[in-house]
Amino acid sequence: MSLLVVGSVALDTVETPFGRADDALGGSATFFSAAASLLHPVQLVGVVGDDYPTASLDFLAERGVDLAGLETAAGESFRWSGVYSYDLNSRETLETRLGVFADFSPKIPEQFRDAEWVFLGNIDPELQINVLDQVHKPRFVACDTMNLWIEIKRSRLMDLLKRVDLLMVNDSEARQLAGTHNLSKAARWIMDRGPRYLIIKKGEHGAILFTPQSTFFAPGYPLEEVFDPTGAGDAFAGGFMAHVAKCGTLDDADLRRAVVYGSVLGSFAVEAFSIERFKDLTADEIEERARHFRDMTMFELAVDASV
Amino acid sequence: MSLLVVGSVALDTVETPFGRADDALGGSATFFSAAASLLHPVQLVGVVGDDYPTASLDFLAERGVDLAGLETAAGESFRWSGVYSYDLNSRETLETRLGVFADFSPKIPEQFRDAEWVFLGNIDPELQINVLDQVHKPRFVACDTMNLWIEIKRSRLMDLLKRVDLLMVNDSEARQLAGTHNLSKAARWIMDRGPRYLIIKKGEHGAILFTPQSTFFAPGYPLEEVFDPTGAGDAFAGGFMAHVAKCGTLDDADLRRAVVYGSVLGSFAVEAFSIERFKDLTADEIEERARHFRDMTMFELAVDASV
Repeated sequence: MSLLVVGSVALDTVETPFGRADDALGGSATFFSAAASLLHPVQLVGVVGDDYPTASLDFLAERGVDLAGLETAAGESFRWSGVYSYDLNSRETLETRLGVFADFSPKIPEQFRDAEWVFLGNIDPELQINVLDQVHKPRFVACDTMNLWIEIKRSRLMDLLKRVDLLMVNDSEARQLAGTHNLSKAARWIMDRGPRYLIIKKGEHGAILFTPQSTFFAPGYPLEEVFDPTGAGDAFAGGFMAHVAKCGTLDDADLRRAVVYGSVLGSFAVEAFSIERFKDLTADEIEERARHFRDMTMFELAVDASV
Repeated sequence: MSLLVVGSVALDTVETPFGRADDALGGSATFFSAAASLLHPVQLVGVVGDDYPTASLDFLAERGVDLAGLETAAGESFRWSGVYSYDLNSRETLETRLGVFADFSPKIPEQFRDAEWVFLGNIDPELQINVLDQVHKPRFVACDTMNLWIEIKRSRLMDLLKRVDLLMVNDSEARQLAGTHNLSKAARWIMDRGPRYLIIKKGEHGAILFTPQSTFFAPGYPLEEVFDPTGAGDAFAGGFMAHVAKCGTLDDADLRRAVVYGSVLGSFAVEAFSIERFKDLTADEIEERARHFRDMTMFELAVDASV
């Protein structure tokens, strides 16, 4: 039941109202793996420059992240720096230096090509398709994307959508992709174009899972202290995919539970800079927060529901 | 188990991307009553001018809205007109003509003073306090307010909060009142100042109920066609209060269910202009949507939740 992630492995410089981190571990594949590996082994494919502090990824390897697909290329690692607004709801990118990521062409190691569960982090749809050409027969492929690709690579993105089982985007991306403000309409539009499943992430407002059978709403986890929102979406993806891989099934009940685990991991991600919160996070803490999600959303209708 | 509402009874001129309504029935007490009366009888207190088409409220009277407290004063009725943005997420007020509402001083008819369940619609906190001075011993008082009163009548509003059981506001009002962007912190701040219960409405993102025991998240109902958002909050309040009055109890389970009925009635409100959607709405439609809310939010954690 191997779980493969392809995405960026970066160094982030982040400024929030609560502090600043310089050249901290970041990137979609990093956040995904740090979260997912708490629930299930992960195979990572990505590229770093020869300046990357790869030893700081050792703790991931120790808990089941196979880094055989992490290529080191001559040059500078992918660096992103940004600053968040006082309410953490918006951020400004100060600098993006692609470095070795500019020439990234994912090479899936032979031993990863039988992966059953595949997550394509937010990279050029061209490369995401390239990854799908290399894996043999995955049972379930999920992908992320972003406004940039929707704008400049729409046609390739639409090709990709025909080949994935699930698209995971945030609400503004869903609206942009479908060209409608209404999320229900946007969901239908997207699912008519390939993905059998769709997750729309709404930040502090939670996430919505659309399947052919049903729609499921998970709230955002109410945190009194959000420290750094960077990576929350990728941690969500990690929690979601790891739970799916662990279950090995795609019933609505399993997918709903996976959304909850995604939400749980996403909520932990924002409690500290970078992937710090995942270093000592325990299974008990994860389960406790999952139970809290259930407690926050359950209700019973009256047995006699006559008005 | 009588349910009393005090609020505005107005004429709204509304323009949305989908059309326009002129001098349509509006106002907080009107929306509240139109929604609540589908579940429970209502006693209404408000004022209209001698130009108000009171006959158009007959259908409310026929289904249990006691209009004995609806005063007709010489002069013009309260009129509001506004235009919604293309995505319906923001609106601009074009005109507010208070008319007879400017001198409104709620007079609670003797036969309403024993009301057990009281909803104070969004009016001057001075008047809301005035209402509380006239009712004898309500079991449960809920109130709404708005940014204007938070700004210019903060001190009286804080006096009011000490005397109500539940405050029902939208997220921006909660943030403004508490002076913090974080909703969890804002909730704690507000509940430290009087109300035992708090509902924060988040429009399309749903509503949150805070009680001393727990927090409950209800999603926004996913509609493909939102016609006119006016009155959704008051219809929510009507559904919520009517269910509470019908139950007669204030257990967390009852309050959660009441939030769901509030969400259901709020979601119907936006499907048509004014209170049109409530005219022929059936009990079956209400129950069906309540069940849909349950289906959209339920999930099971694994029995063996070991990671």
